[in-house]
Amino acid sequence: MLAFDQLRDPAQIKIANMGKTMMLDKGLGLNAVDDLIATAGDYISFAKFGWGTAATMSRELIQAKTAKYREAGIMPYPGGTLLEVALQHDKLTEFLTEAKDLGFTGIEVSDGSTTVDAHTRAEAIKAARDAGFKVLSEVGKKDPTLDHELTVEQRIASINADLRNGADYVILEAREAGKNIGIYDKDGNIVQSELDALAANGITQVIFEAPLKPQQVALILQFGSHVNLGNIAHDEVTALETLRRGLRGDTVGKV
Amino acid sequence: MLAFDQLRDPAQIKIANMGKTMMLDKGLGLNAVDDLIATAGDYISFAKFGWGTAATMSRELIQAKTAKYREAGIMPYPGGTLLEVALQHDKLTEFLTEAKDLGFTGIEVSDGSTTVDAHTRAEAIKAARDAGFKVLSEVGKKDPTLDHELTVEQRIASINADLRNGADYVILEAREAGKNIGIYDKDGNIVQSELDALAANGITQVIFEAPLKPQQVALILQFGSHVNLGNIAHDEVTALETLRRGLRGDTVGKV
Amino acid sequence: MLAFDQLRDPAQIKIANMGKTMMLDKGLGLNAVDDLIATAGDYISFAKFGWGTAATMSRELIQAKTAKYREAGIMPYPGGTLLEVALQHDKLTEFLTEAKDLGFTGIEVSDGSTTVDAHTRAEAIKAARDAGFKVLSEVGKKDPTLDHELTVEQRIASINADLRNGADYVILEAREAGKNIGIYDKDGNIVQSELDALAANGITQVIFEAPLKPQQVALILQFGSHVNLGNIAHDEVTALETLRRGLRGDTVGKV
Repeated sequence: MLAFDQLRDPAQIKIANMGKTMMLDKGLGLNAVDDLIATAGDYISFAKFGWGTAATMSRELIQAKTAKYREAGIMPYPGGTLLEVALQHDKLTEFLTEAKDLGFTGIEVSDGSTTVDAHTRAEAIKAARDAGFKVLSEVGKKDPTLDHELTVEQRIASINADLRNGADYVILEAREAGKNIGIYDKDGNIVQSELDALAANGITQVIFEAPLKPQQVALILQFGSHVNLGNIAHDEVTALETLRRGLRGDTVGKV
Repeated sequence: MLAFDQLRDPAQIKIANMGKTMMLDKGLGLNAVDDLIATAGDYISFAKFGWGTAATMSRELIQAKTAKYREAGIMPYPGGTLLEVALQHDKLTEFLTEAKDLGFTGIEVSDGSTTVDAHTRAEAIKAARDAGFKVLSEVGKKDPTLDHELTVEQRIASINADLRNGADYVILEAREAGKNIGIYDKDGNIVQSELDALAANGITQVIFEAPLKPQQVALILQFGSHVNLGNIAHDEVTALETLRRGLRGDTVGKV
Repeated sequence: MLAFDQLRDPAQIKIANMGKTMMLDKGLGLNAVDDLIATAGDYISFAKFGWGTAATMSRELIQAKTAKYREAGIMPYPGGTLLEVALQHDKLTEFLTEAKDLGFTGIEVSDGSTTVDAHTRAEAIKAARDAGFKVLSEVGKKDPTLDHELTVEQRIASINADLRNGADYVILEAREAGKNIGIYDKDGNIVQSELDALAANGITQVIFEAPLKPQQVALILQFGSHVNLGNIAHDEVTALETLRRGLRGDTVGKV
């Protein structure tokens, strides 16, 4: 039983209806993973091993980490940058085989750091699905200059194409820092017109990267606690859950 | 014995006279709590389980955490937001009973996220004391717009009323971010006139929330190492202690 | 074997040729040190126990930490501020004896927080070497006003003097925050003319403190993955290693 359960509002949104939380693991050790799962494991849907961090550690360590996440009901997946490197080396099959051996159950398909043509992207999504992975694609560029060249219409077209091609979720890129990229301006504030256009297209299968607390608050207040949020720092997952439940000043009485 | 004890200045302020440090625990796991107590447990007086974070975890985990803190001589208490939610549900008694069962030994009485009239606030302080808790009250609003409506005279009146009503300490709100709130301007700098007015009223039983290092430095240089500081991140407690002891550049030779 | 090893580019810089990474340990506990060594121990050359943090903990704890670092091939050393305090108390010999007893194998000689004349500085470097330590000196002032008084020519002269006097490496001060100090302007951006002057003098034995990611990226893109970087937060060592290896968006295809 949860602590202070007698304070819970029966009318409150059911936990099962909360949005998905994608957490950014940028190199946690096993003690920290144990702490994370014990404190907040129930509130994490996806654990992304950020960009190429998985490739700097031993296979045994990565296998131990993915096993802990899977046992806690969390889907571990390697960052899209690694898949992009694999595509550049023409080693997609080897990448998927290794990801499976390492215990990952999700794959991210992105073109944030490189150029990937639409056909290759679609094929990568299909290949990952055929290999038994859940697929998350990502829309957006890591370089702000390139990212700003994308119109919201192009982002929406990419989202819809990825979903048609079999992606389970589409992530909207905001990087770890959350500024000057995607739907965020240089101060990290939401560009409301872009967000509204995305919302009109549907957000059920969209995960908004929202590393900064004001972004999390704004998205929850606009869409409700069932909005999917990503790139949440490992030590902010509990704080995010309190926002979703109306247990922090910013959302008390508002969700 | 402490490392490098031979460098200690015998004229330096005695440890027993250092100010109280209130640390913000926003969801630490047990491995992290063990690390914290082993490295810096002697320098923490209060461990606040921030806002409603305690209510997202199992009762067993919260009990394990409060036990570790208590054994280390640290007073654990749940964030004031939880008490405010309890007041809204008219469940103060249930809240205090549960807090005791969970092993908390302090209670924070605040109105940062909701409206609490003066009588209810006074009654909550007394009820918590009657139930055997130490009481920390908090003055300030979590919403910057509402917080700016408070004059320093009103803050001082609240401090004095809370102390008269039985609070052991009064916390000056600055949230986790420490900007645009309480005695801090939008860049996190101290508004000196407000601080001076508070100081003139007395600060022995006041805890300044000071999450940012420049705030900690400024308050230590103005008041000395015995100033009480709060909302210190768990991984900044040791750094703060070096500031209090003149073992960091900012305070070497000045405390 | 590393995870995803099949993606490694054989032409990529050899690990052995990567630059040194100096990590800032500002008070880690043993669980965190275990995690750090297991995930990123191979990528750390130096573990600096920041400023005076070592002197706030028990001798046993410091000894346990230095032992873990040494066994992992990492050189632990106490922050220069402690040596400065020792010099002020005229206790250099006692300081070096204690540092050795505590298991440190490096010593930092600095004048960031105090004034140390050139002769004393040279003698401290020699004394530390004679006592069997590796020596890292540091150039720069912790107070921005004082630091700005240093010309780049003076910094270069200090670097060269320290190396002549026996320092193994010279660290360029940037503090934990990395702004308005050394080669960084008030926003943390590199002052290119100062960097170029330092580069012309040679950087093989120089460690650039570069706590902010954009600083790390800029230095790697200018000098390559073999540039020595310091004041890296413990939870950013893995991220830095991905930058060195071209496994993060900012450096993919560029190193």
